[in-house]
Amino acid sequence: MSESSGGSRSDLGNVVLIGQKPVMNYVIAALTLFERGSKTIVIKARGKSISRAVDTAEILRRSFVSDAYVKDVKISTETFTVDNKTRSVSSIEITLSKQT
Amino acid sequence: MSESSGGSRSDLGNVVLIGQKPVMNYVIAALTLFERGSKTIVIKARGKSISRAVDTAEILRRSFVSDAYVKDVKISTETFTVDNKTRSVSSIEITLSKQT
Repeated sequence: MSESSGGSRSDLGNVVLIGQKPVMNYVIAALTLFERGSKTIVIKARGKSISRAVDTAEILRRSFVSDAYVKDVKISTETFTVDNKTRSVSSIEITLSKQT
Repeated sequence: MSESSGGSRSDLGNVVLIGQKPVMNYVIAALTLFERGSKTIVIKARGKSISRAVDTAEILRRSFVSDAYVKDVKISTETFTVDNKTRSVSSIEITLSKQT
């Protein structure tokens, strides 16, 4: 992936998608994005991973990037079809920004 | 005055605290608050219950109280001491309001 300093990058490059791994994996992934120059990152999760997304944001903000703050938290429902049945799953998007 | 992260003290009567029970228990609890006349309710959870809090808000909003919307979502960390050790746990507060 190309990275241009100062250019407006699409938010898609700044997303940390939370899965089933230990929370510190995601903290490090998010930290790496900030250290590469991102001013804003988005932490996304679905279903049971939602609590891990909140843990990731809070650990990052409290212990690693002290000038980061929670800019926005969105919750929503994603719907998809499996075997002709419609399933719904809750999701969260946490936007973290640096002060400067 | 005690510190409160939003809302006046009367909001304390409109809180649904999420625990380990099935999500529909909390949906019904929240629904009851709305039906008793509350215009705004707050869904709170800590740790692994956070994903259940999001489920509660989303099920309520999508299936039961169609004029309710997510007014605010706050995430934070609560710190407490157990056996002389400091523990931290993530928490969430979801504020739902009715349009009218």
